Amino acid sequence: MDLTDDQKLEIQELRSAEYLTRRATVPALEEILYEPVSVLDHGFVRTIDYMGDDAAVVQAARVSYGKGTKKVSDDAGLINYLLRHRHTTPFEMCEIKFHIKVPIFIARQWIRHRTANINEYSARYSVLDREFYIPSLDQLASQSTQNHQGRGDVLDGAEANEVLQILKEDSIRNYDHYVEMLNEDPDGNKIDEDRNGLARELARMNLTLNAYTQWYWKIDLHNLLHFLSLRADAHAQYEIRVYADAMLETVKRWVPITYNAFQQYRVGGINLSASALSVVKKLLAGDQVTQEDSGMSKREWRELMTTLDHK
Amino acid sequence: MDLTDDQKLEIQELRSAEYLTRRATVPALEEILYEPVSVLDHGFVRTIDYMGDDAAVVQAARVSYGKGTKKVSDDAGLINYLLRHRHTTPFEMCEIKFHIKVPIFIARQWIRHRTANINEYSARYSVLDREFYIPSLDQLASQSTQNHQGRGDVLDGAEANEVLQILKEDSIRNYDHYVEMLNEDPDGNKIDEDRNGLARELARMNLTLNAYTQWYWKIDLHNLLHFLSLRADAHAQYEIRVYADAMLETVKRWVPITYNAFQQYRVGGINLSASALSVVKKLLAGDQVTQEDSGMSKREWRELMTTLDHK
Amino acid sequence: MDLTDDQKLEIQELRSAEYLTRRATVPALEEILYEPVSVLDHGFVRTIDYMGDDAAVVQAARVSYGKGTKKVSDDAGLINYLLRHRHTTPFEMCEIKFHIKVPIFIARQWIRHRTANINEYSARYSVLDREFYIPSLDQLASQSTQNHQGRGDVLDGAEANEVLQILKEDSIRNYDHYVEMLNEDPDGNKIDEDRNGLARELARMNLTLNAYTQWYWKIDLHNLLHFLSLRADAHAQYEIRVYADAMLETVKRWVPITYNAFQQYRVGGINLSASALSVVKKLLAGDQVTQEDSGMSKREWRELMTTLDHK
Amino acid sequence: MDLTDDQKLEIQELRSAEYLTRRATVPALEEILYEPVSVLDHGFVRTIDYMGDDAAVVQAARVSYGKGTKKVSDDAGLINYLLRHRHTTPFEMCEIKFHIKVPIFIARQWIRHRTANINEYSARYSVLDREFYIPSLDQLASQSTQNHQGRGDVLDGAEANEVLQILKEDSIRNYDHYVEMLNEDPDGNKIDEDRNGLARELARMNLTLNAYTQWYWKIDLHNLLHFLSLRADAHAQYEIRVYADAMLETVKRWVPITYNAFQQYRVGGINLSASALSVVKKLLAGDQVTQEDSGMSKREWRELMTTLDHK
Repeated sequence: MDLTDDQKLEIQELRSAEYLTRRATVPALEEILYEPVSVLDHGFVRTIDYMGDDAAVVQAARVSYGKGTKKVSDDAGLINYLLRHRHTTPFEMCEIKFHIKVPIFIARQWIRHRTANINEYSARYSVLDREFYIPSLDQLASQSTQNHQGRGDVLDGAEANEVLQILKEDSIRNYDHYVEMLNEDPDGNKIDEDRNGLARELARMNLTLNAYTQWYWKIDLHNLLHFLSLRADAHAQYEIRVYADAMLETVKRWVPITYNAFQQYRVGGINLSASALSVVKKLLAGDQVTQEDSGMSKREWRELMTTLDHK
Repeated sequence: MDLTDDQKLEIQELRSAEYLTRRATVPALEEILYEPVSVLDHGFVRTIDYMGDDAAVVQAARVSYGKGTKKVSDDAGLINYLLRHRHTTPFEMCEIKFHIKVPIFIARQWIRHRTANINEYSARYSVLDREFYIPSLDQLASQSTQNHQGRGDVLDGAEANEVLQILKEDSIRNYDHYVEMLNEDPDGNKIDEDRNGLARELARMNLTLNAYTQWYWKIDLHNLLHFLSLRADAHAQYEIRVYADAMLETVKRWVPITYNAFQQYRVGGINLSASALSVVKKLLAGDQVTQEDSGMSKREWRELMTTLDHK
Repeated sequence: MDLTDDQKLEIQELRSAEYLTRRATVPALEEILYEPVSVLDHGFVRTIDYMGDDAAVVQAARVSYGKGTKKVSDDAGLINYLLRHRHTTPFEMCEIKFHIKVPIFIARQWIRHRTANINEYSARYSVLDREFYIPSLDQLASQSTQNHQGRGDVLDGAEANEVLQILKEDSIRNYDHYVEMLNEDPDGNKIDEDRNGLARELARMNLTLNAYTQWYWKIDLHNLLHFLSLRADAHAQYEIRVYADAMLETVKRWVPITYNAFQQYRVGGINLSASALSVVKKLLAGDQVTQEDSGMSKREWRELMTTLDHK
Repeated sequence: MDLTDDQKLEIQELRSAEYLTRRATVPALEEILYEPVSVLDHGFVRTIDYMGDDAAVVQAARVSYGKGTKKVSDDAGLINYLLRHRHTTPFEMCEIKFHIKVPIFIARQWIRHRTANINEYSARYSVLDREFYIPSLDQLASQSTQNHQGRGDVLDGAEANEVLQILKEDSIRNYDHYVEMLNEDPDGNKIDEDRNGLARELARMNLTLNAYTQWYWKIDLHNLLHFLSLRADAHAQYEIRVYADAMLETVKRWVPITYNAFQQYRVGGINLSASALSVVKKLLAGDQVTQEDSGMSKREWRELMTTLDHK
C-alpha cells in the first residue's frame, strides 16, 4: 500500500478532528476510523463511517423508545436468538461504509453482492494508478484436482518465477501503452503535442485485470455478515478472503456481541441435510449405516464423516 | 401524540448523553435527534440516527481519501450536477433512521417502498396501544370527481359528524373486543381467570385499519428522496403526505445543499413528454398549436397549459 | 372462495386458449394455470404465469448456448450441488407470478419479503369485497405459554364461540359502516342522494384487519424458496403457512428436481451451531457431555436433543 | 460474432422445438427467440425467455381475474397513464432473460445496475475464449474537451493505427501468456507435461479488459426501461449503447404499446428544473429573461436553449 503524501495528510486531517454527537458511538471502532488496513500488495480496507452498534440491533428488535437494552447478558441472549432463528431485519439497522482498494478481477467477484451501495473510481473520468496485484510466491498454486474452481499445490520455483515474470511484464507493458495511448502525463498535460490521445473510456480496455481499482462500499450489518460468511470462508478465493478477514476484524470491534453470535451460529456452525441428519441419528442410536444406504453421494458422505471427526 | 412517562424518560436519557466521534456530524440534525415530531393525532416521526452529510456525497462521487470537498460552492455545483443527471449512487452513501408511529392503513402504503430496512412492532408478540387515527373535520372529504383515487370537497357538518361518530365508535368497540378476546390486562395478567384468552396473532385481526402501529425505518438518502418526491407530492394521500413533510424538514437540517438541489430539480421541476416539448417549441416559435394536433390527450393538454400558466 | 360468474368466465377464457411457444414449458404446471386453489375461507392462490424450468437453472449455471442439460441425473446432481453450496443465482433465473387473495393482517406479514414484485388491489380506487377471514373452531387457540409469538391449546367451546361471534359481528358491522360512509352501491351509484359520501381512501380505515385484499405477486425461484422455507415452516403463523403450502405444491409441479433438493437441503435439514456440532462429535466419540459444559442454553440443548432423538 | 458448430446446433435445436402453452405469448418476439443479434465485433444479445406482454401490465394494474384488457386503445391509454405518472409496479410484472456476450470493461459498467439477476461465465471454472474487442476506426476518438467522461473527435489515421496495433498485440500476447500459464489446451490436457500450470482463478488476471465475457441477464420490464433510458442515451458510452439499442429493438417486438409510451414519456421527453420552468413561462408570456437572472448556470442555460430550439 503506497499512499501519497497528500493522501496521508487528508487521512490525518480526518482522524484529528473530533465532534460531539448524541448518536450511538463505538470507541473501539473510532480508534481505527479512516485508517487504511493493508491488504495484498497494494490494496487496503478503510472504515469511513458507521451507524449503530449492538444496542441498535436490540433497540430495533424491540421497537423501543430508548436504547432498548437491559443488561449486556440480555442483549447477548436476544442477539443470539435473532441470529439463530434467522430474524435478519434487526441487523439491517446497523450500517458501515468502507473505502476499498482491490484488484479488478476481485472487484468483479465482489460486486456480485448486489445489496451494497457502491461508488467506484471511474476510469472514464480519471487515470488509474500504476499498481497491479502480483501474488506472493506462496500463493502461486496450480489448479485444484478436486475442486473445479480452487487451487491445489504451490508451483515449484522455476514455474512460479516464470509466472511472476509474465504477470509483471504484461501488467507494466499494458499500463505503459495505456498512458501512451492516453497521451497524458500525471498532471493531465499532453505528452506528445502532435497526438490527440485516446479517450480514457477506451484506453482503459488495454489494462490487465490485476490493475487496482477502488470504491466506497456501504452495506448494512445483515448483508455484510452474509458477504463475510461466503467470502471469509475457506472455499473463497484467497484474494477476496483477505479482504473479508480484514472486514471481519472491523466487525469484531464494532459489534462484539453480534460478532460472537456470528462465530457461533454461522462460521463455526454447519448445515446437515435431511439424509445427513438421519445418518447422525442412527449413529447416535448405535445403528450401522453406510454410504450406500445413506442416500448421500460419496462426496457428501466423505465430507460429513470429516466434519464429524468420525471413522 | 401521547408518550408515557417512561417513554419520555428514555428519550430524555438518549438526548442528554454526548459522545466524541470522528465521524461526519451535523449539528443542526443533532439538535432534534430522538425528539418525536408530532404528526396526525397520535403519530410521530423521530430521527434516531444518521450517517454522512452533504460532504459525504461529494466524497463518494470523487472516491477521495479525505472529505472530498473543496469549497461550499464547488460542492453545491457537484451535487446539483449529480441530481440533475440522475447520478444516484453518491446519495446512497448517506443513511438515516427514523422511529415512526403511523396508522396501519398508511403503513400499508408506506411499505410498498421496498428499498428501506424495517422493524415493525409485532402484534403477534405484544399488545397494540389503544390509539386510532380520527381525521379532523377539515380532512373529511368526499371522493374526488376528477381523480379516481383522491379527495374532493369537504363534507358538510352533519355528514362529517356521522362519519366521525362511526369511526370513533367502531375503533373503540373493536379494540375493547380485542382486549376482551386476549383476556389480558396491560400488565399481562388474565382479566377473567376462567378463560384462556385468544392468541395475540389471532386477536389482532379484529382491529380497525386506523389503529396505530410503529416501526424503525432506515433508508439511504437517494431512496428517501425518491420516497419524498412521491409522498410529499400534492397527489399523495394527505395522511402520508404529512409524514413526508416532517421528514423533508429533517432532510433540510441534515443535508441542506442536497435539499436545495432536490427542490430545484425534483420538487419544483417537471417532466415534459415528447409531444409536450414539441408544443412548447412551437409556442416559443410563435406557431399556432391546438390540442387536436398536439398528439396529447385533452387531459394532458389541460395539465400542460396549467403548468405553463398559458392561455 | 366465492367467484362471481364474470370472474369464472374470465378464468375459463384464459384456460381455454392455447398458443405455440418456443419457450421452456412445463405441462404439469400448465394443467393448473389460472385456476384458483382455495385457501382459508375466502382466499386463493392462482398461478398466472411462469418463466423457466429445472433445465433453465442448469442452463444458467453453465451459461450454455443450448438447454444446458445433459442427463436428468446430471441435472439433479448439479441442482443438488447448487442448493447445498448456496449458489443462489441460477435459481433466480426462474420466475413465477401468482394472483393471491389473503386477509389484510396476513398480507402485512407477507409484504415484509421485499424481493417480490407486487400490485395490490387499491382501496383508494375501488371498494373492497364483503369478505372476512373467520377462523375455523380448531384454529382458535390461546397464546402459547412457551413461544411469545405462537399459539397454544385450542380454546374450549364456550370461549371459542364468543370469539367467533365477536369477529363476525365486528367485521360485518364495520363493513356496513364502511359502505354507509362511502354512500355508494355496488354499481357505483349513490345510496342516499342527500349525502356526498366519504372518499374511499378514508372510508377504508374503518375495515377490520381480517378483511380480504388481493394482489399479483411475482418472484424468482430463489427468493420464493427462501419465503417458503420461512413461511411453510412449523413456526410460521397457520394463516400464512396454508398459503405457503399451496405454493409449495405449485413448486413441485413446476421444478420437481429443485423441489426435491429443497426438501433434502432446506426443509428436512438443520443448522448446528459451533457448540452443537461439538456436542455431536463428543457423543459420537462416546464422551460424556452435559448441557452445563456444552456452552449451550437449556433451551438450545433441549431442542438439540429432540432434533437428534437423543435421550 | 463467431459461434462454433456445436453452439449453432444447440441454438437450432431450441428454435425448432415448439410447445403448447396457456401463457401470454408474443409471436413477434417468438420469431427471434434464441437467435444471437450481433453487437460489436464478437458480442451478441440473445433473447432466451420472457414472461408477460402489454396486457399483463394492464392485468396487474387492474388486479383482474382475466386478461385485464378491454380495447387496445384503452390499454394504451392506461399504459401511457402509468408511465407518465411513474406508476412503476405494473411494468415489473413482465420479465425477460437475455444471453449476452460483452467485453469485460463494458460488463463492469453494466453490472452497476443491481436490479437484475445474473449468471456470469466463470473464469475460475472455465477458460475464456480468445476474443477481444478491437474498436473500428470510426470509434477511436480522443477525450472530449467538453465532457470529462466522453469522447471527442475521431483520431487521425496514423494515431488510430498505432492504437489499434497496441490493442491487438497486447490482447493477443496477454491471452497467449494466459494459456501458457494455465498450461492447458482447449481439451483440458496439459500442454507441457513438466509443468503443473497455474490455477485458472489466478491466470485470468493477466487478461486485458477488452476480453469478452458472457452472462445470462434477467430483468423485469420496469428496470429494463430504466437501464435503457440511461444506456441507450446519447451520453452513454458507445460500446454499451449498442447493446442497449439491440435490447430496445427486442422491447419493441415484445411490448409495442409500452415501447411507444417509453418513447413518448422518457426517450423523447425532458426534465425541466424549477428555474428552467420559470424561464419557459416568462418566455411564453413574452417577458425578457437572461441567463444572469435565470438562476441557471451558463451550461444549464445553454442546454435549455438548445433543447427548446430557442435563439
